[in-house]
Amino acid sequence: MALQELTWEDRNVRSTLRAVRTAQPLTYGLTNYIAAHQSANFVLAVGASPAIGAIAFAAEHLASIAGGAWINLAALITDTPEQLVSVARAAAGSGTPWVLDPVVVGAGAPRIDDFARELLAIGPAVVRGNASEIIGLAGGAATSKGVDSTATPEEALEPAVALAASSGAIVAVSGEVDLITDGTRSVLIPGGHELLTRVTATGCGLGALVAAYLGSGLDPFDAAAGAHATLAEAAARAGRTARGTGSFVTALVDELSLLEA
Amino acid sequence: MALQELTWEDRNVRSTLRAVRTAQPLTYGLTNYIAAHQSANFVLAVGASPAIGAIAFAAEHLASIAGGAWINLAALITDTPEQLVSVARAAAGSGTPWVLDPVVVGAGAPRIDDFARELLAIGPAVVRGNASEIIGLAGGAATSKGVDSTATPEEALEPAVALAASSGAIVAVSGEVDLITDGTRSVLIPGGHELLTRVTATGCGLGALVAAYLGSGLDPFDAAAGAHATLAEAAARAGRTARGTGSFVTALVDELSLLEA
Amino acid sequence: MALQELTWEDRNVRSTLRAVRTAQPLTYGLTNYIAAHQSANFVLAVGASPAIGAIAFAAEHLASIAGGAWINLAALITDTPEQLVSVARAAAGSGTPWVLDPVVVGAGAPRIDDFARELLAIGPAVVRGNASEIIGLAGGAATSKGVDSTATPEEALEPAVALAASSGAIVAVSGEVDLITDGTRSVLIPGGHELLTRVTATGCGLGALVAAYLGSGLDPFDAAAGAHATLAEAAARAGRTARGTGSFVTALVDELSLLEA
Repeated sequence: MALQELTWEDRNVRSTLRAVRTAQPLTYGLTNYIAAHQSANFVLAVGASPAIGAIAFAAEHLASIAGGAWINLAALITDTPEQLVSVARAAAGSGTPWVLDPVVVGAGAPRIDDFARELLAIGPAVVRGNASEIIGLAGGAATSKGVDSTATPEEALEPAVALAASSGAIVAVSGEVDLITDGTRSVLIPGGHELLTRVTATGCGLGALVAAYLGSGLDPFDAAAGAHATLAEAAARAGRTARGTGSFVTALVDELSLLEA
Repeated sequence: MALQELTWEDRNVRSTLRAVRTAQPLTYGLTNYIAAHQSANFVLAVGASPAIGAIAFAAEHLASIAGGAWINLAALITDTPEQLVSVARAAAGSGTPWVLDPVVVGAGAPRIDDFARELLAIGPAVVRGNASEIIGLAGGAATSKGVDSTATPEEALEPAVALAASSGAIVAVSGEVDLITDGTRSVLIPGGHELLTRVTATGCGLGALVAAYLGSGLDPFDAAAGAHATLAEAAARAGRTARGTGSFVTALVDELSLLEA
Repeated sequence: MALQELTWEDRNVRSTLRAVRTAQPLTYGLTNYIAAHQSANFVLAVGASPAIGAIAFAAEHLASIAGGAWINLAALITDTPEQLVSVARAAAGSGTPWVLDPVVVGAGAPRIDDFARELLAIGPAVVRGNASEIIGLAGGAATSKGVDSTATPEEALEPAVALAASSGAIVAVSGEVDLITDGTRSVLIPGGHELLTRVTATGCGLGALVAAYLGSGLDPFDAAAGAHATLAEAAARAGRTARGTGSFVTALVDELSLLEA
């Protein structure tokens, strides 16, 4: 199958970032504390307003007033399954489009996999993960090392298409080349940089970016593709100036904030 | 009302930073995990020793031995209301001056607002927030977008003065120009940099800085004013060298650590 | 006692980093949210794969499949004592060597000290802390300021040797000069940089590094010594280019990622 490629050079991609910078949506997420600070800075860098965490007395309220939301399964390191379900339902119930990021699915812990399917049934607009996670969520036998995928994006193509078709969600697979599919139409997003895999929580931050794009009134397919292509471009630029992995993170946020849409 | 302006050029402001660098107080806080790492590095950069988190078996002990403390309402994303109250009481009971940072107050979640008032009744030395939060805590109708204020500092002046007068706490409002008031005397702190609003948790970190200044034996008004003016100066300097929002954060901590008092 | 010194110039030290870059072990930790993001980036910088947090449904599984693990006592700011014990037992039961980092021990909270001894009885391969923590864990009267040591490494020598002898663990004390001992053989690791004490969570990150080295099939003594000497060298290099404390952190991660073993 020859798939279309999308990159930052595509004007439709650039227009998605312009939409975010104009809408500046409140973007609410449940995520893990390894990723939270960086995810917030990713969201701010593209022009949206992040709020993060299952804060007592206010979590469902934030999910209902947000433009877009994301739920990262690794939020379970501090939040309860009930809190995740409650926020997912508050988002779904108030028409807030949301992203499911199935971290750790397919890593060999069946109750995590089951719980991810419970969230999937609540109806995310986008599911975003690495190849192992998407294969695992689609019911296949994934291979992984903890939270890192050892499967390739190519191996994830069929499972991703099937998952999109069965769930109704856009499915996005990040890897050396990213894949976005709605079950019928699929596109590839090349670019990025090898250093993305040598710093923590860039995938988690990508989930937050997709939520910011969703919150800007974009179609879920365009939101997912736009967010992935934006991060890929920022990473490619950051990789040209970074000395090592520390300065790469700093440059990555710089480039996200500086991209001219 | 013509208000006095305070800036880094004021020798009384510089002397507050000198006090912190000399006292090096243990500064203990409950905060949220988005802000925690950066808040600790802010506190270390001015010369104090941070400790953060509602650690089992030791939280009240840390609050009681600290020079200064802060309680950021967004700590509720991992801590219970009871833990926040317990630490506030331990601080109050042992004479540790503390800062209340009413994150999310006024955002439309009434139980958060009620809980903030419960903490206020325990007697913080300083209340520090953005305009929406201070208006909300003072009982007014605030406007906000999640955790970001959409009210202006000018709109917060009257509510801040009233809140200070009724609570006995110094009230600090951060914004394009910061406002510090004890209910009678009010000062403005200009400076800072627009990029402060494009990176996460700088307000949370400012709450931690006020606690470090309080822990250095300064009068609460001087502590609040000194901390705000220090951050404003560091941000102005950082803004002159930053490329984008990533390098701004790095430069901000650098400048805090390099300021010659 | 004249102790042997180990530095990055020692080829046996360099070979430990080479072992990590070859083995790329899954390294699993329970730690605190102040340290988590930076600890993950430390682990990635030396070539290993980090996973962090007491994630529901999967924590014991991760501990059992990991190459190495670490438990930082300050994880108690979000995790329960039972979760820490459960992960320690899962690691011990499946032969995953693990590091105990007794943060806050000796700070005057006796129940923390008791709980650290309960974890010690489960059999960590390495205990790593600052002087106050090691003195406290060994049963001595430590002095500290919150989470920062006010005792010197020299004062920790005898307690560290005794603790290693009684527990069977390698004991590592970080300070101006680091000390590694198995109760019989002790070595000193000079170097590092003063700025390590002016940024948060570098000690916590060192615990994570030791776990990555343990996960690479190294003898626990060599793993502890290698991780300490690697961080000391990276810090010395970072200190030569940093402007202030913000850029020091960035440079530290850069140097960890760039070290040629």
